[in-house]
Amino acid sequence: MDVNIDTTHSQVVPITLFVAVLCLCLVIGHLLDENRWVNESITAIIIGCVVGTIILIASNWKSSRFLRFDEQLFFIYLLPPIIFNAGFQVKKKQFFHNFFPIMLFGVTGVFISTSIVAAGCWWLFPKIGLKGLTISEYISIGTIFSSTDTVCTLQILHQDETPLLYSLVFGEGVVNDATSVVLFNAVQKINASTLGGKAALNIFLDFLYLFSTSTILGVTAGLLTSYILRGLGFGRHSSVREISLMILIAYLSYMLAELFELSGILTVFFAGVLMSHYAWHNVTESSRITTRHTFAAMSFIAETFIFLYVGMDALDYEQWKMNILSLWASIGIYSSVMMLILVGRAAFVFPLSVVSNYMKRGGDGSSKISGKHQVVIWWAGLMRGAVSVALAFKQFTLSGVTLDPVDATMITTTIVVVLFSTIVFGFLTKPLISYLLPPNTNTSSNINRCRSLKEDITLPLLSFEESASENLSRAKENISMLIERPVYTIHSYWRRFDDTYMRPIFGGPCSTDLT
Amino acid sequence: MDVNIDTTHSQVVPITLFVAVLCLCLVIGHLLDENRWVNESITAIIIGCVVGTIILIASNWKSSRFLRFDEQLFFIYLLPPIIFNAGFQVKKKQFFHNFFPIMLFGVTGVFISTSIVAAGCWWLFPKIGLKGLTISEYISIGTIFSSTDTVCTLQILHQDETPLLYSLVFGEGVVNDATSVVLFNAVQKINASTLGGKAALNIFLDFLYLFSTSTILGVTAGLLTSYILRGLGFGRHSSVREISLMILIAYLSYMLAELFELSGILTVFFAGVLMSHYAWHNVTESSRITTRHTFAAMSFIAETFIFLYVGMDALDYEQWKMNILSLWASIGIYSSVMMLILVGRAAFVFPLSVVSNYMKRGGDGSSKISGKHQVVIWWAGLMRGAVSVALAFKQFTLSGVTLDPVDATMITTTIVVVLFSTIVFGFLTKPLISYLLPPNTNTSSNINRCRSLKEDITLPLLSFEESASENLSRAKENISMLIERPVYTIHSYWRRFDDTYMRPIFGGPCSTDLT
Repeated sequence: MDVNIDTTHSQVVPITLFVAVLCLCLVIGHLLDENRWVNESITAIIIGCVVGTIILIASNWKSSRFLRFDEQLFFIYLLPPIIFNAGFQVKKKQFFHNFFPIMLFGVTGVFISTSIVAAGCWWLFPKIGLKGLTISEYISIGTIFSSTDTVCTLQILHQDETPLLYSLVFGEGVVNDATSVVLFNAVQKINASTLGGKAALNIFLDFLYLFSTSTILGVTAGLLTSYILRGLGFGRHSSVREISLMILIAYLSYMLAELFELSGILTVFFAGVLMSHYAWHNVTESSRITTRHTFAAMSFIAETFIFLYVGMDALDYEQWKMNILSLWASIGIYSSVMMLILVGRAAFVFPLSVVSNYMKRGGDGSSKISGKHQVVIWWAGLMRGAVSVALAFKQFTLSGVTLDPVDATMITTTIVVVLFSTIVFGFLTKPLISYLLPPNTNTSSNINRCRSLKEDITLPLLSFEESASENLSRAKENISMLIERPVYTIHSYWRRFDDTYMRPIFGGPCSTDLT
Repeated sequence: MDVNIDTTHSQVVPITLFVAVLCLCLVIGHLLDENRWVNESITAIIIGCVVGTIILIASNWKSSRFLRFDEQLFFIYLLPPIIFNAGFQVKKKQFFHNFFPIMLFGVTGVFISTSIVAAGCWWLFPKIGLKGLTISEYISIGTIFSSTDTVCTLQILHQDETPLLYSLVFGEGVVNDATSVVLFNAVQKINASTLGGKAALNIFLDFLYLFSTSTILGVTAGLLTSYILRGLGFGRHSSVREISLMILIAYLSYMLAELFELSGILTVFFAGVLMSHYAWHNVTESSRITTRHTFAAMSFIAETFIFLYVGMDALDYEQWKMNILSLWASIGIYSSVMMLILVGRAAFVFPLSVVSNYMKRGGDGSSKISGKHQVVIWWAGLMRGAVSVALAFKQFTLSGVTLDPVDATMITTTIVVVLFSTIVFGFLTKPLISYLLPPNTNTSSNINRCRSLKEDITLPLLSFEESASENLSRAKENISMLIERPVYTIHSYWRRFDDTYMRPIFGGPCSTDLT
C-alpha cells in the first residue's frame, strides 16, 4: 500500500508544481504584455530557469527538474495541438498566394542550411577538440539546428500591417518544422558508412515520399471530418460531439502518420487547413466560436509548457557534469554553432528572396520581398526552439538518458543555443523590427499593403469565409479580373473545382449561386 | 536505436487504436441517438467489449487490451474534467434550492448503503465460499458498490420537464461520487484490526474534515480565478489566456487537493460552481461560449473514454483465469452483490424521501418527492460505473496487477456488476421512465412544474445569469416575496451578502442597482 501511495505522489507532485508554474507564467506573461523587450516565450523560458534553479538548490544540487525532458511527450502530446492550430488558423488565401516563396524558404532553405551547418560542424568540431561523431550524426546536427522557432517574431509582427511578411514568416515556420523533422527521420534511416551521391538521392526520394503521403493523409482526414459532420448532421443534437469529433480525428490523423512513420506534423497541419476550409462551415455557430478559441488555447498551453520545460531542463546538472570539454572549448563549440546558424540562414534567405522576386517580376512591387523584409525573415528564423531540443534528445539520448560524454556535449550545446537564441535574439526582435519597420513607415506602407490586400481579395480566392453580400460583390469583380489577368488561372481552376465538386460534398458557402 | 523505435511504437499503437475507437463510438453514438433503448454509455461499453474480443482473438487469447486499466490515469486525468464540468454546468439555483434532500441522499445515503452492502457481503461471502477478506476490506467493498453512475439516467431525464427530479438525480450523483471516494480514503487510513465504535467515529470525523477542507480549497480556487480575471482584465488582450487560466487553475485545485490527500472531486466541483458564478461574468462573450462548450466536450470525451476502457477491460483474460470459485459460486457472488445494491439503495431512498417531504411540509406539493419520483431516483442510482472500477483497482491491485485469487475475484465481480448494471438496467431505464412519467402525464405535470419553476424564480435567487430586464422584474417580485415568505431568509441573506460584498470583488451582474 505504501508503494502505491508513493507512486501516486511521484506523479501528483510534479504535475501540481508544473501546473502551478504554468499558471504563474500565464499571469506574469499577461502583466508583461505591454513590455517593449519581453514576450511570452522569453517569460516562460526565464521562469523555467528560475524554477529550475530553486529546485536545484532545494534538492542539494542533485536535480533541476521534476520531469525529465521526454521527446515522446513532446511529439505525442505537445506538438500536435500547436501544428493543428497553425493549420486551422492560417489565413489560407495569403498562405496559398505566397505558396511558392514559402516552399522555397521552408523546404529548399532547410536543405541549404542543413548542408552548411553539417559541413561547418564537420570541419570545425574536431579542430576545437570534439571528436567521435559520425557523418550521419553531423547531418542530424545540421537538421537539428535548421529547425526554427518563429513564435517569438510572430508575436511581434502584425498580420494586418504587414500581411506579406507575416504570411512568409508564419508559412516558413510551419513548413520548416515539418521539413526538418521529415529530413531528420530520413537521415536516421540511411546507413552512415555508405554515404555518398546515392545516399543523398535516397534521402531526397524518401523526403519526397514522406512529404506527399503525409499531405494526402492529412487532406483525407480533413475531408472525412467535413463529410461526416455534413452528412450526419451532428449539430442538430449537440455541438459537443462536433467539437470532440474534430479534435479526435485531427489527433487520429497525427497518430496514424506517426504509426506509418510519416510526418505527423504535415498531416495534422493539412487536416487543420481542410477542417477550417470545409468542416468549419458544417458546424453550429457556437461550435465555430468554440473551436477557434479552444484550438488556440490548447496550442497556447502546449507552447508555454514547452518553453517552461526547456527552461527547467537547461539546468540539468547531470548533463553539465558529463561535459568533457574545457570551458573555452565549450564556448568555442557554442559560438561556432551560433555562427553557422547565422551564416546558414543568410545563405538561403537572401538568394532565395532574389529568386522569388525574379519569379514574381510580372506582378506589381507589393508582392516582392524588399531588402528590409529579407532582413526580418532572416532574423525571424534565428531562434531555435523545442523542435531542436526534441530532435537532439531523439538523436543523442535513449529515453532522455545519455551516458556518452560526446552525446551529453551535443545535448548541452543544443540547450545553450536554444536559450541564447531565444533570450538574446528574442529580446532584440522587438527593437529591430520597430527600427526596420518604423510605425510611420508602416502607416505609409500600410496604404500600399491595403491596396495590395484589396487586389489580393479581388483575385480568385481560396478562402471564402466572409458574408454573402461581400462575396457577391467580390465574385463579380473576380470575373472581370479573370478576363483581365489570365495569369491567375490556376487559382481560378481550383476555385471552380472547389465550388462545383468539393463544397457541395464537404461543406462551405457556394459562390456559384451568387454570380 | 531499435529500442527507441520500439518504445515509440509501444505508445503510438495503443493511443492510435484508442482514438480510432473513440471516433467510432462518437459516430455510432450519434447514429443511435434516436434509439429507444440504447444510450451513449451502453454504446461505448458494448463497443469496448467488441474491440476487446477482437484483440483477444487477434492476440491468440493472450490479452484483451492495449492499455492496462490504471486508476492513476482515471483519477489524475479523466475524472477532473467530468466533475469540473458538472460543477460548471450545474443549475445553481435548483441545486442549492434542493440542497437539503441532495445532501441527504448523497451523504447519508452512502453511509447507509455502505453499511448494508458491507454487512451483507460479510455475512454472505463466506457462505458462498469466498473467504480471506478483512473487515476493512468489507467496508471498502461497501463504498465501492455505493458509488453510483447517474450519467445514464441523466441522458434520459429532461431538465425542463422534470426540474426537481433532474436536480435531485444530478446533485446526488455528484455528491455521491465525492462522498464514496472520501469515505473510501477514510477507510484506507484506519487499522483493520482495531475496528469498533472508536474507529467508526474516526472515519466519520476524518470524513467531515476532508469534506470541509476540500470544499474550502475549491471555493478559494474559484474565487482566486474570478479575482485574477477581473482584476487584471485578461479579456482586453485575448480570450485564449482567460480560457487557459480557468482550465489550469481548476486542474491545479484538483491536484493540490490530491497532494494534501483531500478530496479532489469536491474541490474541483466547487471550483467549477464558483467559476460559473463569478469568473464566467468577467470574461469576454466568446470566452463564455467557448468555456461552456469546451468543458462539456472534455467531459464528454473523458466519459466515453472511461466506458470504452471498462468495456475493454471486462475481457481481461488474466483476471478471469485467476478466479478460484466455481461458476455457480461466482454467479452467487455476483447476484448477491447485485441484490445488496438494490436493497441498500432502497433502504435509504424511500425513508429519506419521507424525511425530505416531512421537512418541506410547509411548502406546496410541487417541491415534494412523489412516489413515482422516488422509484426513478432509486433506479437512477443502481448503475455502477467508472468510480467503482477505479476504487476496486485501488483496493485490490498494485498498479493494475493482482496476484491474489481473492483480490482477482473482487475485481472480476466489480467488472461484472458494472457491466450488468450499466447494460441491463441501462437498457430498461428509458422504458421505465416513459412508463412512470408518460409524456401526457409529463405535459399535465409540466404545468405544475412550470408554476413551481416560476415560484422558484421569484424566490431569492442564487444564480443571476439572466438579462438585466428580467432581473429587474424579478428583483421587484423578490422583494414582495420576501415580505410574504420569511422562511427563505437564509437565501435572502446570502443574496444580500453576495450582492454587497462578493459580486463587486469577484464579478457578476449586481442586482442591487436594479431594485
